[in-house]
Amino acid sequence: MSEIIVSTPVHNRLEQLFLKHNLSKKTVVLFDENTKELFGRDILTALKNQGFTFVELVVPARETSKSFRTAYRLYGNLIEADVDRSWNLLAVGGGVVGDLGGYIAASYYRGIPIVQLPTTLLAMTDSSIGGKVAINHPLGKNLIGFFHMPELVLIDPSYLKSLPEREVYAGMAEVVKYGFIADMEFLRYIEKHFDDIVAIKDPYVSEAVRKSASIKADIVEQDFKEQSGLRATLNFGHTFAHGFEKLADYRHIRHGEAVAVGMICALHLSRKLEKISQDELQRGLAILSKFKFRRGLVQKRFKDIPAETILESMLSDKKKVDKQLRYVLLEGLGKAYLHPEPLDDGIVIEAIEKAKKCC
Amino acid sequence: MSEIIVSTPVHNRLEQLFLKHNLSKKTVVLFDENTKELFGRDILTALKNQGFTFVELVVPARETSKSFRTAYRLYGNLIEADVDRSWNLLAVGGGVVGDLGGYIAASYYRGIPIVQLPTTLLAMTDSSIGGKVAINHPLGKNLIGFFHMPELVLIDPSYLKSLPEREVYAGMAEVVKYGFIADMEFLRYIEKHFDDIVAIKDPYVSEAVRKSASIKADIVEQDFKEQSGLRATLNFGHTFAHGFEKLADYRHIRHGEAVAVGMICALHLSRKLEKISQDELQRGLAILSKFKFRRGLVQKRFKDIPAETILESMLSDKKKVDKQLRYVLLEGLGKAYLHPEPLDDGIVIEAIEKAKKCC
Repeated sequence: MSEIIVSTPVHNRLEQLFLKHNLSKKTVVLFDENTKELFGRDILTALKNQGFTFVELVVPARETSKSFRTAYRLYGNLIEADVDRSWNLLAVGGGVVGDLGGYIAASYYRGIPIVQLPTTLLAMTDSSIGGKVAINHPLGKNLIGFFHMPELVLIDPSYLKSLPEREVYAGMAEVVKYGFIADMEFLRYIEKHFDDIVAIKDPYVSEAVRKSASIKADIVEQDFKEQSGLRATLNFGHTFAHGFEKLADYRHIRHGEAVAVGMICALHLSRKLEKISQDELQRGLAILSKFKFRRGLVQKRFKDIPAETILESMLSDKKKVDKQLRYVLLEGLGKAYLHPEPLDDGIVIEAIEKAKKCC
Repeated sequence: MSEIIVSTPVHNRLEQLFLKHNLSKKTVVLFDENTKELFGRDILTALKNQGFTFVELVVPARETSKSFRTAYRLYGNLIEADVDRSWNLLAVGGGVVGDLGGYIAASYYRGIPIVQLPTTLLAMTDSSIGGKVAINHPLGKNLIGFFHMPELVLIDPSYLKSLPEREVYAGMAEVVKYGFIADMEFLRYIEKHFDDIVAIKDPYVSEAVRKSASIKADIVEQDFKEQSGLRATLNFGHTFAHGFEKLADYRHIRHGEAVAVGMICALHLSRKLEKISQDELQRGLAILSKFKFRRGLVQKRFKDIPAETILESMLSDKKKVDKQLRYVLLEGLGKAYLHPEPLDDGIVIEAIEKAKKCC
C-alpha cells in the first residue's frame, strides 16, 4: 500500500522520501496551470536543490485535460525527453492532474511509479488515494482507466490556504462522508470543528485530512479491486451525485457539491428503510446544512428537476451492473453498507422528494 | 495465472470454459479482417448456439490498428453497445488483435477480463501469453501499455492450417527460442521434427505449441513484473532483433524473422564470451539455418548494413535502461541468462560481423 505523508513543507523532504521508497531521482513533474503558478517555484527549486533530474509538464487546469488528446501529447513529450522505465511521475494538483498523471504513469512503458502530491482538499482526502486513475471519453466520464497504486502520497495541508472557498466545501463533502460511513468519533470531531476545518485552521484541518486519508486507505487496502462491497461504501451519496453531475453535464456543479446533496438523499433513503433513526437522520442533515453552496446552484439544479428525471440520469451512470443501481446506505451514523438487493424506483423517488424539501 | 487450453475445435467448448473461469457469457469479440473472414462464422455460430450475448468488433489486419485512433473508436463502440464491467473480451487473432484487445480490456472500466484466442503461431506461443499488452505511439512501438493477464488462453492448432508459410516461420523463431533458453530436451524435439512442425502436422505442431506456451507461462509466473531477470531471458535474440526491426521501420520484416537473425548474433556473442562451446554454436546455427526466409529480405536488410549502424539502432530501442543495452546470452544450449554487466561495443560488433558471414 501507498505510504501517506502529511507534512509541512513537504517539498523539503522529497529526496529523503523518494530514497526511502526506492524511487529514482529522475522524475516527471506534472502540474496544471494553477498549481504551476502557485507551487511550481517551490517544488522545482526543491527538486534542483535535492539533486533530482526532472522533466516538467503543464496541462490546462480543467476537466477536459483528462482526454486522449492530452495523454497523447504528454506521451510524445516523455518519449522525446528520453524518459524511460527508470523514471517516475510526480503529480502536483487536484483530481484532474492526479487522474491524468496516474493514467499516464500506469500506461507509459507498461507502468512507471507515481507519487501523488495533491493540492486540493478533495484530492488530499479522496482522489489521490487508492489507485483509481482514468481519463474521460466524450461518451462518458472516467470510462478509460486503471488501478495504479501511488507509491507515495505527499500531503501538505498548507497548500489548502490558496484554495477557493467553493473548492474547500466541495472537498469537505468527502471528509464528512468518511465520518458517516466509517467513524462516529470522527463525525463528532467534524461536528465540533467544522468551521475551523473549512477555515483551514490547524491542527483541525491537518487532523481532518490525516483521518480522512487514513480511512480511505484502510478501506482500499481491504478491498482493492472492489470485490467485497467494502470499497463500494466509499460511494455513499455518489449514486445520486453521479445523476446530478450528469444532468449538469459535469460542468456547473462540483463533484463534492453533488456528493453533499447525494448524501442528503442517501440519509433519507436509509431512514425510509428504517436503517437509521429519526434522530440520526436529523443529526446527519444538520451537518450537511453547514455546507455553503453558491446560492441557486444546488437549488436550481435540484429542486426544479422532477425526481423521476434524476433517477433516470442515475440509471445512465456507468456504475450500474445490468441496469441495476446499487445503493450505499447507513445502518447508523458511522456505519455504511452496500444494500444487497435492488430497490423499487418508488422508494428512491420518495427519498429524493424528501431531500428536495429539506435543502 | 492464466489457464492455457490446447484443443481442437476449441470454439465448441467456449461456454464450458467461460463458466469454469467465472467469466460471464457477455463477451466482446474482437477480430481483424482476416480472422473474421477465416474463423468468424464458426466462432460466432458457436457463441450463438452456446447462449452468449456478444458484440462484434473488427479492425484492419495491420500493425497500425494498434493505435490511439483505433482504441478510441473501439471504446466508443463499446460504450454505445452498453458494454459494462460485467462483460469480458475475446480477442481472436495474431499479435495485433491480442495486443489491442488486451489494451482495450485493461483500460475499459478500469479493466475487464480478457480471453485470448490466438490464430498465428507467434501469438499461440508468445504474444497471447503473459499479459503484456500495448499500442504504438508514432515515436515508438509498444510504448503505451500494461500488464493485463488473460483469464484464459484458448489455442486451437488447426487454425494454423490457413497461416501463410512466412508467418509459420516467423512464429517458429519463438518456438526455437524456448528450446534455446529453457529446455534442451525440447530443442532436441525441434531438431528432429522441424519439418513436421512447420508443415503444421500433428502431433508435432500441437506438442510444439503446448510446450512453448507452457515454458513461457512458467517463466512469466516466476517473474511477472520483470524483476528478477528471468522474464528478460524471453528476450533472447530480441535486443538485436529490435535493432533490425527499427532499421526496417517495422514494415518489411516480421518480428520472428528479426528474432531468428537476432538469435544468430546472440549465439555468436555467447561464443565470443566463451559461455558456449564451438560445438554448441554450430548446433544452434544448424537449427537456425532451417529457416526459409524470403530470399533477399534478411540478406539485404542485414548484410549491407554496417554492424555499427545496427548497434546504433539497437541503442535507440526502448528496452535500454540508462542507455545501456542488456544482453541475454546462453550458458549452454537450453539455458539462458541475462548478462549482468554492459558489454563493450567492440565485442558486440564482432558478433554481428560473424553473424553476417554465416547467414
